[in-house]
Amino acid sequence: MSKSDADLGRLLTEVCAANQELSARGLARFTFGNASGIDRASGLVVIKPSGVAYSQLRPDNMVVVDLGGSVLRGDLRPSSDLPTHLELYRAFDHVGGVVHTHSHFATVWAQARRAIPCLGTTHADAFHGEVPVTEHLSDRDIASEYEANTGREIVRCFGGRDARHVAAVLVAGHAPFCWGASVGQAVDTAEMLEEVARMAYHTMALDAAAAPLPTALAEKHFTRKHGPDAYYGQGKST
Amino acid sequence: MSKSDADLGRLLTEVCAANQELSARGLARFTFGNASGIDRASGLVVIKPSGVAYSQLRPDNMVVVDLGGSVLRGDLRPSSDLPTHLELYRAFDHVGGVVHTHSHFATVWAQARRAIPCLGTTHADAFHGEVPVTEHLSDRDIASEYEANTGREIVRCFGGRDARHVAAVLVAGHAPFCWGASVGQAVDTAEMLEEVARMAYHTMALDAAAAPLPTALAEKHFTRKHGPDAYYGQGKST
Amino acid sequence: MSKSDADLGRLLTEVCAANQELSARGLARFTFGNASGIDRASGLVVIKPSGVAYSQLRPDNMVVVDLGGSVLRGDLRPSSDLPTHLELYRAFDHVGGVVHTHSHFATVWAQARRAIPCLGTTHADAFHGEVPVTEHLSDRDIASEYEANTGREIVRCFGGRDARHVAAVLVAGHAPFCWGASVGQAVDTAEMLEEVARMAYHTMALDAAAAPLPTALAEKHFTRKHGPDAYYGQGKST
Amino acid sequence: MSKSDADLGRLLTEVCAANQELSARGLARFTFGNASGIDRASGLVVIKPSGVAYSQLRPDNMVVVDLGGSVLRGDLRPSSDLPTHLELYRAFDHVGGVVHTHSHFATVWAQARRAIPCLGTTHADAFHGEVPVTEHLSDRDIASEYEANTGREIVRCFGGRDARHVAAVLVAGHAPFCWGASVGQAVDTAEMLEEVARMAYHTMALDAAAAPLPTALAEKHFTRKHGPDAYYGQGKST
Repeated sequence: MSKSDADLGRLLTEVCAANQELSARGLARFTFGNASGIDRASGLVVIKPSGVAYSQLRPDNMVVVDLGGSVLRGDLRPSSDLPTHLELYRAFDHVGGVVHTHSHFATVWAQARRAIPCLGTTHADAFHGEVPVTEHLSDRDIASEYEANTGREIVRCFGGRDARHVAAVLVAGHAPFCWGASVGQAVDTAEMLEEVARMAYHTMALDAAAAPLPTALAEKHFTRKHGPDAYYGQGKST
Repeated sequence: MSKSDADLGRLLTEVCAANQELSARGLARFTFGNASGIDRASGLVVIKPSGVAYSQLRPDNMVVVDLGGSVLRGDLRPSSDLPTHLELYRAFDHVGGVVHTHSHFATVWAQARRAIPCLGTTHADAFHGEVPVTEHLSDRDIASEYEANTGREIVRCFGGRDARHVAAVLVAGHAPFCWGASVGQAVDTAEMLEEVARMAYHTMALDAAAAPLPTALAEKHFTRKHGPDAYYGQGKST
Repeated sequence: MSKSDADLGRLLTEVCAANQELSARGLARFTFGNASGIDRASGLVVIKPSGVAYSQLRPDNMVVVDLGGSVLRGDLRPSSDLPTHLELYRAFDHVGGVVHTHSHFATVWAQARRAIPCLGTTHADAFHGEVPVTEHLSDRDIASEYEANTGREIVRCFGGRDARHVAAVLVAGHAPFCWGASVGQAVDTAEMLEEVARMAYHTMALDAAAAPLPTALAEKHFTRKHGPDAYYGQGKST
Repeated sequence: MSKSDADLGRLLTEVCAANQELSARGLARFTFGNASGIDRASGLVVIKPSGVAYSQLRPDNMVVVDLGGSVLRGDLRPSSDLPTHLELYRAFDHVGGVVHTHSHFATVWAQARRAIPCLGTTHADAFHGEVPVTEHLSDRDIASEYEANTGREIVRCFGGRDARHVAAVLVAGHAPFCWGASVGQAVDTAEMLEEVARMAYHTMALDAAAAPLPTALAEKHFTRKHGPDAYYGQGKST
C-alpha cells in the first residue's frame, strides 16, 4: 500500500468516527450535521454521504471528492453541504477538518441572528472574541449555488480575522460550522461552542445587559491556552 | 393466512412499536400519548388501548376498530382520543398513521396558544411554514363529542393547506397531533416537532422580536428535501 | 404472623421502595425528600430515617411511629419533616401516603411563592384547579414546632377544598408536599406535579399573560379521568 | 511505611477520586475544573495535573506541592489554578480541600456578576446567606500573578464572614470555587451549589422581583442542619 493510500485510509476512518461522534455527543440529531476532512498533500476531501443515518456509517461508505467537488470514490451522494465545506478548505489553508451541526443553543443564536459575545472565561479559553454570525444571503445567492454561496459568506464574514483564533461561525437562520487542524479537533470545537452558546444564552436571560468580559481578562485566558506564551496543560517539554 | 390478515398483522406490530417509541424517545410520559395506523385497503384502524402502560403493550393487545369507531377486535377499550384520530383519517386521505403526544415544548406552545413560527432551516427542512394552533372549542363542542370535535377543529384549522406539507398541529391548551404516510413517519415527525418547538422557544426567549426565516430561504430548504426537485439524501437512482 | 404484622411488613416495603423511587425518578437529590405511609387500621406510620442516603434504605431501617410521633420501632431518628406528615394524616383521613421532595420546577414555583395555574389539559388531567401555595409562617410559628406548623398551614391553605382533587401543595419558600391513597400514588403525583410545574414555567416564560384553561375544558379533562363519569383507561368492567 | 507516607497516599487517592467525581457528576466538562487537598500536618498539597483528561487520572499522576507552590513530586505540571488554591489554604485554615468547576448555572451567575440570593430552604440548608461574587481584578492584577490574585480577591471578598458557613464563591466572569473540611466535602458543596444556582436562576426568570427567604426561616433551616442545635440526620449519639 502506498503512502497516499495509507493516508486516505486513515482519513476515511477519522471522518467516519467524527461523524459518529457528532451523534454520540448529542450535537446532531436525525441526520442533521456532517463532518469532513482533507488530505492537503493529495487535495482529497472525505465527507459524510447525504441523508445516511449515523449508525450506518462505515469508513468505506464515506464519499471521496476533489476540491472541485467531483466524486472520486463511493456510490453515494456526498452531503448536500459539501460546497460549503469546500469553500472553507479553499479559503482557510490551515484547516484540516470541517464540521456542521444543528446543536441546540448554537442554532438558537443563529436563528436569533446574534453573534455570541464573550461573556466569560469559558468562552475566552476557546474563542478569541465573539463568535460571529453571517448576513442572510440574497434571494439570488439562494437560488443558485446556495451551499457554495453560504461558504463564501462565511469567508467574507471573517474578513481579516484569523480563522484559527475563532474556529466557528453561525450561519444566519441556519446553524454553526466549525473547523480545526483535524476533523477531530473540529468536533471538539463544535462541542465547546454548544456549551459556550448555552452559557451565554442563560447569562443574557439572567441579565439582558450583561457586559462582555474585560479585554485584559479575555486576552489573559486566550493566551494562557493558545500561542507561544501558553502555560496551560503539559506543553511540549514535559 | 390471507393477504389482508398479513397486512393487519403487520399493522398491529407497527402500531405497537410506534407507541413504545413514543415512550422510548421521551415524547410521552406516564400514559400520555397514543399512536394509530390505518390499513386503507380494508379501512381497519389499529390504536393503543386506553390507559395501558407502554411497557405492557404487545401487538395482540392493540385495539382494532373500523372508521366509524366500532371495536372489531380486542378486549380493551381504545384510546379515548380515538375519535380525533378517525376525523384525521377521514379528512386527510394520504395519512397512514397518527400520533398524539404531550411532548414538553410542543405542549408549551399549545398551552400558550401560539403557532410555532418558522425561525430557522431546521424547521424549514421539516415543515412548510408555521405549525398552526387550533381555536378553543365552544363549551357545547366540549360537552358532546369532545374528541371528535377536536379532530374537526384540526381539519378546519388546515383549511386549504396541504396537510402533507405541515404534518403537525397544536391543539389549543392541550398538545400536538402529528401524522404521516405511516405511523413510523408520524413518530419521527413528533420527535422533529419537539426539537423545532424547543429551538423556537429559546429563540423567542433570546429575542422576542426574532423574525421568521426569509421566504426564499425557507422554500429552498423545504424543496431541497421534499418534492420533485429534492436533492438531499440518496434519492431513488443511487 | 398476625394480619397486623403482615400489614406492617408490607408498609415497610412500600415506604422503602417509595423513598428509593424519589431518588430514581430524579425528584429528590442528596437526601432531600422523604416518603411515608400509614396503616389506618393500626394507626402506625412508617417514614424514612433522617439524613440517610437513598441507596442505604432497606425496609428494616425505616422508622415506625404512632400518630403522636413517638418512635415505636427502629434505631434511627425519623425524618425531621415527620410532624408535617402527621398533620396531613390527621387532617386528611383519606390519605394513605405522603411525599416531600425538592423537585426542581415545583420548588421554583414555591420559591417564587406562586400557585401553579392550570394552563393545559396535562394539568387538568391530574389536578382540579391550581396547585396552591401556602403563606409564610410567622417568626413565632417558625421558632416553635416549625414542622408541625408547616403541616397546619398546609391544612389551613386547603380550607374547604377536597384534598383528593388537588393532591399537592407548594410550601412557600420551601418545596412541595404530595399525597395519595397510597405512598406509591403519592410518588406518582409528585412526578406529575414536577412535569406540570415545568410546563407551566415554560408557558409563562413564552407568554407572561398566558390564560388559564377555560373552565369547561378543565372540567372535561378532570372528569374524563376522575369520578363516576370517567371514561379514560380500562375502568372496572374490562 | 511511615504515618506521613500513609497520609499522603490516602490524600493522593482522595484527590484523584474527587477530580474524577467532578467529571462523573457533570460539574466539569472537557478538562475544566480541578480539585486539591491538603495534609495540614505536613503542609503538603495534592492537586490535579494541568490539562490531563479526567479518565487518565490516577493517584500516582497527581502533583504534590508545598504551600509555596514548589513541585515536590510528579512529572507533570500542576493545574494552572494552583496559586488560587494555595491562597485559600493559607487564608482559611479550616479548609482541607478546594474544588474549582465551570458547572453550568453557577458559571452563569458568575458571568452575570451577581451573587446568588437565598431564595429558598434548599439554599438555606446548605449556605448561610447569599453566595458572594468577587470584583473583577485590575488589569495590573491580571498581568502579574493572575491566579494568586484571584485567590486574594476571594479572600478579600469574604472579609469578616466565616468561610465555613458559605463554602463557595463566584469569581466574576469566570466560575465558582468551593471548599470543605475534606476534598470530598468540597465536591459535594460544588454539586449543591450548582443545584441552588439553577433553582435561583429559574426563580428569578419566573419572577424577577422574587424576595429572599425571610431571615427567621433561613436561620431555622441553616441551624437545623449545622452547628450545636442541629437536629437533622442521625447526629453522633445514634
